[in-house]
Amino acid sequence: CKSKLPDVGTTIFTVIGQLSSQHNAINLSQGAPGFPCDPALVDGVTKAMKENRNQYAPMTGLPHLKQLISEKVALAYGQHYDTTDEVLVTASASEGIYSAISGLVHPGDEVIYFEPSFDSYAPVVRLQGATPVAVKLTQPDFRINWDEVSAAINSRTRMIIINTPHNPSGQVLSESDLSELVRLTQGTDIILLADEVYEHIVFDGARHHGMATHPRLAERSVIISSFGKTFHVTGWRVGYCVAPKVLMDEIVKVHQFLMFAADTPMQYAFADYMTNPVTWQSLGPFYQRKRDLLQSLLAESPFRLLPSAGSFFMLASYGHFSDEPDSEMVKRLIVEHGVAAIPLSAFYTDGTDNKLIRLSFAKDDATLKAGAQALCQVK
Amino acid sequence: CKSKLPDVGTTIFTVIGQLSSQHNAINLSQGAPGFPCDPALVDGVTKAMKENRNQYAPMTGLPHLKQLISEKVALAYGQHYDTTDEVLVTASASEGIYSAISGLVHPGDEVIYFEPSFDSYAPVVRLQGATPVAVKLTQPDFRINWDEVSAAINSRTRMIIINTPHNPSGQVLSESDLSELVRLTQGTDIILLADEVYEHIVFDGARHHGMATHPRLAERSVIISSFGKTFHVTGWRVGYCVAPKVLMDEIVKVHQFLMFAADTPMQYAFADYMTNPVTWQSLGPFYQRKRDLLQSLLAESPFRLLPSAGSFFMLASYGHFSDEPDSEMVKRLIVEHGVAAIPLSAFYTDGTDNKLIRLSFAKDDATLKAGAQALCQVK
Ligand SMILES: CSCCC(=O)C(=O)O
Ligand SMILES: CSCCC(=O)C(=O)O
Repeated sequence: CKSKLPDVGTTIFTVIGQLSSQHNAINLSQGAPGFPCDPALVDGVTKAMKENRNQYAPMTGLPHLKQLISEKVALAYGQHYDTTDEVLVTASASEGIYSAISGLVHPGDEVIYFEPSFDSYAPVVRLQGATPVAVKLTQPDFRINWDEVSAAINSRTRMIIINTPHNPSGQVLSESDLSELVRLTQGTDIILLADEVYEHIVFDGARHHGMATHPRLAERSVIISSFGKTFHVTGWRVGYCVAPKVLMDEIVKVHQFLMFAADTPMQYAFADYMTNPVTWQSLGPFYQRKRDLLQSLLAESPFRLLPSAGSFFMLASYGHFSDEPDSEMVKRLIVEHGVAAIPLSAFYTDGTDNKLIRLSFAKDDATLKAGAQALCQVK
Repeated sequence: CKSKLPDVGTTIFTVIGQLSSQHNAINLSQGAPGFPCDPALVDGVTKAMKENRNQYAPMTGLPHLKQLISEKVALAYGQHYDTTDEVLVTASASEGIYSAISGLVHPGDEVIYFEPSFDSYAPVVRLQGATPVAVKLTQPDFRINWDEVSAAINSRTRMIIINTPHNPSGQVLSESDLSELVRLTQGTDIILLADEVYEHIVFDGARHHGMATHPRLAERSVIISSFGKTFHVTGWRVGYCVAPKVLMDEIVKVHQFLMFAADTPMQYAFADYMTNPVTWQSLGPFYQRKRDLLQSLLAESPFRLLPSAGSFFMLASYGHFSDEPDSEMVKRLIVEHGVAAIPLSAFYTDGTDNKLIRLSFAKDDATLKAGAQALCQVK
């Protein structure tokens, strides 16, 4: 059976997750919270189900949830999205990213994205008959080199995929990055697809510089977010997407056939939950404490930690004590030390190996301690 | 913004649903049950959530749910699917259909499907850069004319999309249809995509003749089913897909990036529920009674009912008393008579208008009575 994605195997998150559970390892690999969500959310789902909210939701989402999303984005970033036509509730951020790329990227187009990169972007672009163009983030701080972006742009460039806070590096865009993005896209038809699922997880008092914070970026942007990442329920598969109507119309055409509508009781629960003032502001400090805990626990480890400014993730370098490929290092961590991480090479299509592993600190403190203890034994 | 689907508007189910609620009409349009699910299912979701089953499920589904699906298919149809590699839990049947088409259909391919047709198939095929080839079902009984199928097959034919029980006509494939399908596909590489979401909803003591009932069809088939349709929870967005490994491998490549994994607590609930002996057998008689009730309630109406052998749906003809286009008839039903149906022309890409409307009888008896009463007033 001829494959449309001959070079694609099973996603790294599944491969490492399976190996990790085979070896009963402490799992610092996947970006999934290892602690409970607010019980009020669980009660919200139960309430909705008992009220018989169990059939198809409206195709673009529950109107009052869309309203709350629009209000939230306006409040947080000052950008107004029309509730009816510019907000879409998706069945996960993944579905939003897929629907946006499938709806907007045509065969023959080029799509610029940044490596290391979440592993879905490039294959989804290829599935459209389009060409993903990787621009590598600079070492060691994983900033965007805007001259390289400029050089990569040509008349076929249809889209640039931005991800801030960035998975896997934990870096965030600055205001000056946004200015560069304005400068490079002004007067073009380039669409920005912004994966901002970690929008509320920024550290050290910084603000999130997302596409909705700048009107000249917002006007060409599709912004993706995730209730799973924000409310500690990655298994509930609800996210959202905001975009100007002209872009949203095309995304909805795909969404309506791909998914029709997102989960109904979960949508009711999120709407209930967001009706009470939600303290998005507390999420950054919550994860910052976890970042700091893991950092301090690893101070005596052989790994050198790279700074993390946002997201669930930090990178750890080991090239100074071992020249193993990162996939071998991770295998050794799981099999011999009982702790799982993701090898950074999995985030590069060309397998670039910088002797880095990605650690998730979205875990309860006991898990972080046990994981760090295991990492401290590595030689 | 150049559209990839310039001829596609908002799905008919949303258009009619909105018009229907604006006019507070009795809604016999969308195929969504109008009565509660088993409370045990609700309890199952609550239990899973309280046990902190709220993070990502395994990418292809919970292993014990996949096992139960495999056992069910084997028991019902005698076909064995390997739990690890040939069963995929999808986030709705829609996602399964999309992932299968996206994973298996290449640009330039042709895909045969039957009209009237559920409205997602053709656009999803077009999104792959492939050509949907409509074969019309014959009037008045909506059987497949296999000579026409044979004439439509050529070297570019990659897939045939089968839907049995059939939405919107309520017709089902017979054993002789399966034999024709074997004959036409034998020795070819044609893949069968079988939308069998109404597999348990067949009437009058008939058996479901799905692709898994015939080994020579199963070997080239992707079979899609839906927990939402079977367990009265269309808003929970969980379905499944079974296929031989060589096909499944390509579907999973898309699924893993499009959706990653289906809803976790709902998967636990379905697995719990299916651990107790599930009486699939009762679903046919349950809906048959509703079909019969609606039929008898409409005996005095001006509409002529076409026989329904399965699914939630029956067709009603009005050409003998009105030559309004079916979209006008439906508008009039909603606005003047307070009852909603789907115009059959929406299931044809060329807008063929046979003066037929589709009625859903997946409603509680009171709704069926009120809807029928309204339909009896039509002149
Ligand atoms: C949807 S896959 C995994 C979760 C995640 O975002 C990550 O671990 O990088
Ligand atoms: C996913 S859309 C609608 C449900 C359905 O199957 C129908 O009404 O035909």
